[in-house]
Amino acid sequence: MKFKKHVFICTNERPNGKECCGEERGMALVELFKKEIRERKLAVDIRAQRAGCIDVCANGPALVVYPEGVFYGKVEPADVAEIVESHLVNDIAVERLKLKV
Amino acid sequence: MKFKKHVFICTNERPNGKECCGEERGMALVELFKKEIRERKLAVDIRAQRAGCIDVCANGPALVVYPEGVFYGKVEPADVAEIVESHLVNDIAVERLKLKV
Repeated sequence: MKFKKHVFICTNERPNGKECCGEERGMALVELFKKEIRERKLAVDIRAQRAGCIDVCANGPALVVYPEGVFYGKVEPADVAEIVESHLVNDIAVERLKLKV
Repeated sequence: MKFKKHVFICTNERPNGKECCGEERGMALVELFKKEIRERKLAVDIRAQRAGCIDVCANGPALVVYPEGVFYGKVEPADVAEIVESHLVNDIAVERLKLKV
């Protein structure tokens, strides 16, 4: 396994303004995850990156953490540090943001 | 786990023509995976989609299959049906394309 944790953040847009993660909202999260991972020197084992639609559009902004396959929804920039500290570092999923999928 | 297999295909471009998966080559694979998955009616359990750089640039076009975290490199359109049949359906990784990461 190249990465202990690999985070895919949806940056997709849907046509006609349908509910969705959105490129702008998704990229804000991507940048925050990358910054947090870089500053904590976790980048060898943990990667966060953009991805296309992860099929939970109504819960955007959304992301998925592998290898566990835990999906998170309605993630705000203020949640990023908690997800990194709790889930990515200490392996404890953030229950309040976890999607039942 | 929302998907039994979740495939992320790099569609990233790097500046100055550096060796890379490339949007055009990556998207060709994304479309072929989606078509194969759709035609075989596997879409409830298996998803293939585009992603940003998965950090194995010299081996592009590249992709990763989760939850196993198996990385594949130098994937050609002609390899897609084999990856779907062998790995995604029958859980047997395609060794000749697997990256040692």
